[in-house]
This record gives sequence, structure tokens and C-alpha cells, in this order.
Amino acid sequence: MKSLLHILITIICSHYIPQTSFAQTIQQKVNQYTKANEKKWIDEYLQFVAIPNVTRDTANILRNAAFIKNMMEQRGIKAELLTGTTPNVNPAVFGEIKVPGATTTLAFYAHYDGQPVNAAKWTGGLNPFEPVFIDKPIEQGGKIVSAANGISPEWRLTGRGSADDKAGVMTILNAYDALIKTGAAPTHNIKFFFEAEEELGSIHLDEIFTKHKEKLAADLWVIADGPRHVSGKKIITFGVRGDVNMDLTVYGAKRPLHSGNYGNWAPNPAKLLVDLLASMKDEKDNILVKGYYDDVIPLSASEKEAIKKIPNIEETLKKELGIAVPDGNGKSFVELLHLPTLNINGIRSADVGELAANIIPTKAEATLDLRLVLGNKVESQINKVVKHIESKGFHVIDHDPTEEERLKYGKLIKVTHGEGYPAQRTPFDIPLVQKLVKAVQSTVDYPVVLLPSAGGSLPLYLFEKTLKTKVISVPVVNYDNNQHAENENMLVKYLWEGIETMAIIMMMEK
Amino acid sequence: MKSLLHILITIICSHYIPQTSFAQTIQQKVNQYTKANEKKWIDEYLQFVAIPNVTRDTANILRNAAFIKNMMEQRGIKAELLTGTTPNVNPAVFGEIKVPGATTTLAFYAHYDGQPVNAAKWTGGLNPFEPVFIDKPIEQGGKIVSAANGISPEWRLTGRGSADDKAGVMTILNAYDALIKTGAAPTHNIKFFFEAEEELGSIHLDEIFTKHKEKLAADLWVIADGPRHVSGKKIITFGVRGDVNMDLTVYGAKRPLHSGNYGNWAPNPAKLLVDLLASMKDEKDNILVKGYYDDVIPLSASEKEAIKKIPNIEETLKKELGIAVPDGNGKSFVELLHLPTLNINGIRSADVGELAANIIPTKAEATLDLRLVLGNKVESQINKVVKHIESKGFHVIDHDPTEEERLKYGKLIKVTHGEGYPAQRTPFDIPLVQKLVKAVQSTVDYPVVLLPSAGGSLPLYLFEKTLKTKVISVPVVNYDNNQHAENENMLVKYLWEGIETMAIIMMMEK
Repeated sequence: MKSLLHILITIICSHYIPQTSFAQTIQQKVNQYTKANEKKWIDEYLQFVAIPNVTRDTANILRNAAFIKNMMEQRGIKAELLTGTTPNVNPAVFGEIKVPGATTTLAFYAHYDGQPVNAAKWTGGLNPFEPVFIDKPIEQGGKIVSAANGISPEWRLTGRGSADDKAGVMTILNAYDALIKTGAAPTHNIKFFFEAEEELGSIHLDEIFTKHKEKLAADLWVIADGPRHVSGKKIITFGVRGDVNMDLTVYGAKRPLHSGNYGNWAPNPAKLLVDLLASMKDEKDNILVKGYYDDVIPLSASEKEAIKKIPNIEETLKKELGIAVPDGNGKSFVELLHLPTLNINGIRSADVGELAANIIPTKAEATLDLRLVLGNKVESQINKVVKHIESKGFHVIDHDPTEEERLKYGKLIKVTHGEGYPAQRTPFDIPLVQKLVKAVQSTVDYPVVLLPSAGGSLPLYLFEKTLKTKVISVPVVNYDNNQHAENENMLVKYLWEGIETMAIIMMMEK
Repeated sequence: MKSLLHILITIICSHYIPQTSFAQTIQQKVNQYTKANEKKWIDEYLQFVAIPNVTRDTANILRNAAFIKNMMEQRGIKAELLTGTTPNVNPAVFGEIKVPGATTTLAFYAHYDGQPVNAAKWTGGLNPFEPVFIDKPIEQGGKIVSAANGISPEWRLTGRGSADDKAGVMTILNAYDALIKTGAAPTHNIKFFFEAEEELGSIHLDEIFTKHKEKLAADLWVIADGPRHVSGKKIITFGVRGDVNMDLTVYGAKRPLHSGNYGNWAPNPAKLLVDLLASMKDEKDNILVKGYYDDVIPLSASEKEAIKKIPNIEETLKKELGIAVPDGNGKSFVELLHLPTLNINGIRSADVGELAANIIPTKAEATLDLRLVLGNKVESQINKVVKHIESKGFHVIDHDPTEEERLKYGKLIKVTHGEGYPAQRTPFDIPLVQKLVKAVQSTVDYPVVLLPSAGGSLPLYLFEKTLKTKVISVPVVNYDNNQHAENENMLVKYLWEGIETMAIIMMMEK
């Protein structure tokens, strides 16, 4: 494996200075076309983000699908909606372009659904589904700016999905548009596939893959999702962590109790929950759930070497995020992305601050996020956490407690979990992957970052399992896009660069 | 003290069977008058509860004050609004009746402000400020019932303040009304005092007391607040716990982070908060904050004896509340009410369940409630908790963190707290108190419960400190009134019994 990495690095070093004239030509043409179509594409992007896209909001998901289908047809791509066998699955939008003489097929993936929104948390005048431009991140004092006299590449387009992952859809479709409109036909057959259940863990993706296996056959899938490197450099990632969520609810008395009249006697579910959550990690951030790290497949020597070459961005991150002491007990940022996590996404019990009342709450809830690495199995990680909970004296149920259960068990907890999926990692040594790295590298004059696994998650294991194909990610959005949270935004400059990157891949060496 | 308790018990035993004919007469007259005025009083009560009364909502508080003033004037009590020296203090409503030949003055207290509401949590069609009747508690399947054909005494009137403590205002004013309308003039001078900042810790009550010291002079203050005994028996309480709130906010990164892209590296403030809260109590519910119990003045022998005679209601409570194992490491319910508490009122970090996103939150908040017993000082209890927080490695600030503080301190917490107030306990051996006990006892054929200190809090220490008077509580509302929480309600039967109780006190032995 070490020699394979060397091959990749050799490819990069031989290409990034100077750029090839072929790539330069394509790049220039694409960029000129992009410049000329900036306003039109931005208008389309704004309309797209204005359509609410929370995964469970199927009515609006269908409006998004129709919008994408229309965008594809305007670009000469015949589009169709692919569903699975379960009724009412959010449809994927699919399209295909056959290129005369092409012997390989590249399939491009993005997802158009978005995480749930809590509109009340969006600040600075921003709203999840009323996209506007801001001159810099709201958290750094950014303000809404008018696009009447043109759009600065340093601005950000805001809204849920602006980055994650409608940006993927826009870069892929506009890259294809730019290529064909400038007379540069792709060198490979191209397939387009836009999913709409990614933020629920792509729970029906396998159904869609299985049902449309032949239609979706490709030599390599290119995923446009996730953020570029924190250094701002373009990045190619060879894998992703897996992911599954758990919801915990600890129960107290059946009704809220006056904290004076019952205080010291009635059990407080918030206290029981904090005790439980505190028991899951030690002071040095090691996860104490028994066997949590046991089945991790360690990074290979070449993967470890690639990691060492990734620019260290910890000081930048610490400053930008206001972090004095990172977690991880001295391990590097990138090393930590290659280990499983056990994150508290949120906790809630009664109210705090102005809304808080002097009560003993009836329940305390937490949502956990478990990221998985190669080797971890979803059910097995879940079971380890459940066993840990039981070891702390809790009786675990999967439903709201009955009267009998309340009266029988001193520590009662409801535990439910999502479907989830495992991690995926593509090896470095696949010729088509090497060609892709070379193509992306040709667009920039610095070494593209090569990351064995991203910290984030996509159900990429399904491409291997069901479609028997390989898959690689080429993220396009800014790392500080507030993905999954309030004030989500996409740096305009990276939209243009993403179009260029996707176009170059469509034109990569046969 | 033991002999004093014996005197009290002797008084009770000599009176509760049979009732005195004098008391019976008054009681009968009052009850007949109540029956005749039921509809009118209930209509007035509904109108009263329909006026929002959250303490900080001053505009509506003033509407409540005007409503009370009008009720008093309709009953022949000249009323005025008393304010302190600070501008915009929520006014207390005051009135006074001089009785010819009376040598002592009884002052009656209730409060008309209520705890904050989260209307979304009210269930079964209930709304905080749209009072209706329910046939039983919502949590036991209660349904809204129509009062068109009369009101059952077993029903409950719902709404914020219906129990805590507009019930106090209604019982006091209607008791007086019933007495004078049935020709039974009170045997003491009567003062009426209705406060509107109790739920904020009565932060200006001392100002009002100081400013109107002479106007508010009385031999004994009677407080109509808090719940009756869980057994359903009438209760007299000789004291209350003190109370103060603390708000804690632990900080993470400045913006919400993708839990995959930053998971294992970026500190999670929810995790830091649960570790901190978990460290405050041991498995046996002992508070581990250093010195937390140190300055507690223990119960006297006679108080301990009174406690032993209180009906044990733990099995009833456990069943009704769905509690399998109470806290308190084997101590009795009543014993535990006489110890300081450290309660988690609420916790919040990001979102849970359907709204949860896969992020590392930016902050985690908790509101704590510290109940104090005789001997505890507010500042001292707060300082013990702050010292505990510091001992866990936190840097404590009282403001949102600056950029510099974020970059300097790995564990950063904002700690703020309310004004709070200490506990109060009136000794058993005061003649006027003994007469009051005798009067209340005369209305029932079981021993009235005598409780040295209620678990709940009122700023009763101020009556001793500023007005140099004695104070005793005669609660009127049902214990399962959901005080401070959603679905607050007042059992109608106890409204009628409360009117009877207050009337008897106004007519008690000179």
C-alpha cells in the first residue's frame, strides 16, 4: 500500500506545477462560461434553496425533485424519479448521458434533502428557506448584502441545504452544462443521481439500488458532499465514517413536581440521565463503553502516511472556533476522525433560564450520535451502549413506560435507534481513482489533500455492497458552512470552483 | 418545646370531636352562603385566572391588580396598590378592615403572580390562561367538562395561577364576604395583602414592607399558599424552606459543528455539563458539594415528634406518581423536606429526538434550584456550589465569554443566580398560633397536620426581619395541583373548604 500512495503522490507532484495545457483549456472555458452564466445560475440556486427540504417533509421533497428534473431537462438531460419498493420513499432524481466512444461510466451523486431546522435559532435576519447573501459568517459579524450589483465570490449564500447538499447538485449540473455549452463533450458516459433521504441515513437507498441495479451501473461513483479541507484546499476523500443515532429518555414521576414540596424525595430524571451520560467517557475523552474500540480496523501504513501529509489546521481551527483545549487526549485532529465517536447531539429536560420553573422534571432526553469506522457494525455498537446503560442499573425499554414498569423499576429508560450504516473506505490503488486524483490535481497549484476517511458519514458502503462498484468523494463546500445547524451557508467562490472540479472529472483521462 | 407540642395536641384532641357549636354555626353559615354564591364566585375566579399573570409580564400583572382591587371594593374593602421604592415594582394589593373592640390584627397573605408558562406543554386541550373545568387530573385521563349544569366539587379549575396562588386570593376574599354577608363580623382587625413578585423570589417585598411598615403591622400573618397535605387533610405549617436559583451555561465551539467532521476533537459542552452535574451528588443522593449541610440547624425534639405524627403518605405518593424507588437514602419524605436541596430544574443543549441534528452543540445550560433550611445562608450556599464548580476545573464567569476567555480556558462556565431568600420557622408556643390551630381544628373531625416546615418556599423570613411579626401558613389547595408546571389546577372542593377555613380564622378566639 505504501508504494500506491507513492504513485499517487508522484502523480500529484508531476502535475500540479505546471498545470497541463489541456486541463487549463477546459478549466478556462468552463470558468468563462460560468462567469457569463453567474446571475442565471445564482437565481436558480436561490429558487432551489427556497424550497424546504427537510427529509420527512415529503410534499416539499417532491417539489425539490420536480425542480431538479426541470434543471436537468433544461440542460438536455432526460430525467426520471427513481423510487424503491416501499411506498412513499422520497424519490431519487436520475439522468444519464451516453457519450459516443466512451468505455467507462462515471456516476455523480449528491443529495437534495436537508437536516431538520429550528428556525428560531437562525440569527442575523437569516431564515432556513429564505436564502440571502451574507458578506461573511454571521458568527463573525456577517450581514445580509444585496446582490443587485453583482455577487462577490467571498460572499455566502445562506439557507438549509445551501451547502449540504444542494451545492452538490448545482456544481454537478452546471459543470455538465458548461462542458456541453462550450463544446467540450465529456470523455466518459455520465450518470446523475440525486438522493433525498440522506439525512435520515439513506434508509431506502439500498432498495433503490437493488431495484435499479442495471440503470445505476458505473465504473466509479463520484460523491459531491461534505466540506473541503479546513485549510481551504481541495480534497479527495477515500471513505467515510458510518453513523447511527440513539434516543434516550429517562423517566421520573408521571407529572412535574414542585421542587420544594418533593425535593430530595422524588427522583429527578435529569440527574439520572447526567449520571448515565457522564459514565460513558472518562476525563481524557476515552469512551468507557466496554469494547467500543474493539473491532476497529486500524489504518494501513500508507493511509497513516497520507494522514501525516495533511496540513495541520488545529491552531487555525482552535482560533476560529474559540477552542482552548481540544478533546482527544493528545491525538491529532485527523487521527481522531478515524476513530468511532459517541457524541451528545442534544439534551433536554424541562426548561432552562427565563422559562425554567422550580420543578422536578418528568423526563430527560438525550440524542446520541455514534460515528463508526471500518470494522464497526451498527447493531454491535448499539448493543455495547445498551449493555453499558444496563450495567448502570437501568431497565431498558423501547416504548413509553407502562404503569407497571414505572412502579417496578427505579431507573427506567427508553432507548430507540435509527437504522444507521457502517463505514466505507476505498483503497488508493484503483486506476480510475488515480486518474480522478490527477484530474482534480490539474486544477490547482498546491497538493490536493488526500484523506483516507472523512469524519462525516454517507452510506457509501451500499455502493460496494449492492452496486459492486467503487466510490470516491470530491467535496465542494466550505468547511465553515454550519452544516446540519443554524445559519447554514455556501461560500460563492467554492461554488465556482466546484463547477470547475466536476467538469474536469467529467473530462478526465479515459 | 416538647411540652408545647403536647399543649397543641391537647388543644386539638379536646376540640376535634365534637366540634364546638359556635364554630359549627359559623361554618354552617359560611358554607350555606358559599353554596348560594357558588356560580358568581366561580365566574369571578374564571375571569381572574384568564388574566395572564407571569411575574415579568407587568402589563398583565397590573390588570390582575385592578381585578383584585375591584373584587375587594365589591366586598366593602377599600383597596390600594402598594409599591416599593424601586420604579415599576409589581404592586401588592392592600386593604384593611377595623373591627370595633378588636385588640389584635390578623393579616392575610396570598400572591397573584404565577410561574412562567410553556403553553406547548399543556395537554388535553388545556391552555394556561383559558381556564376550564376538568373532571380529574389530565394525567389520569381527565377531560374538559361543561359547567353549564353546575360544578361538581370533585372537578378542577385549570390554568396558571388557578392553584398557585389565585386560590389563596379567592378563599381569603370570599371568606370575608361570607362572614360579613351572614352577619358574623370578624373578631379581629383584618388586613389583606396580595403580592405579585412571589415567583421571582419576592425581590421587592422587603422594600414594600419597609416603606409601609406601620400600615402592615399585625399580630399574626396568615399565609394562604402551598398545598394541603397529600393525605387530603388540612394542614398548618410553621415554616418554609428558603430558595435560590442558579443558571449555568457551559461553552463549546463558537458555532455548531458537524458531529462527523469534528467528532472526537471538538469539546462537547453537553458532555462537560453532564460531568459537572453528575459530580454534585453521589449514588445515594447525598449532595457532594463541600459543606452543603454544614450550617443546617437541626429540628428540635418537639418538631421531630410532630413530624413522626404526620400520616405516612409515601406509598400513596409512589403509586400516584409512578415512582418505584424514592431518593433520600432511606430517610422519610417529611425528614427530607427539612434538608437543603440541589435540584436540576432543567437542562438544555441543542435539540433532541426529531429536531436533533448531528452536531456538537455550542453550549449547554442548566437551571438549578437550591432549597435552603434554617441556618443556611443564600450567598453561602451559592458560593459552595461555585467552589465545587471551580474544583472541577472550570473557569467561572458571570457574562457571555469574550474571545480571549474562550481561547484561554478549556472549561468555561457562566454562573448567575437569583436573589433568593433564607428559610423561616415559627416556634409552636405562641398563644395566637395556638388559637389559630384550635380554630382550624374545629372545622374537621380528624387531627390537622402540623408541619414544622413545608418543602416549598416563601420569603416568610421578611415578616420577622422587617415587620417584626409572626407568620404561619394555612394552605388551601390540593397537593396534586401541578403547581409551577403545565396543567395547573385547583380542586373545587378545596376552594369551598378553604373559604370555610379562612372564615373560621377571621372569627378565631380573641
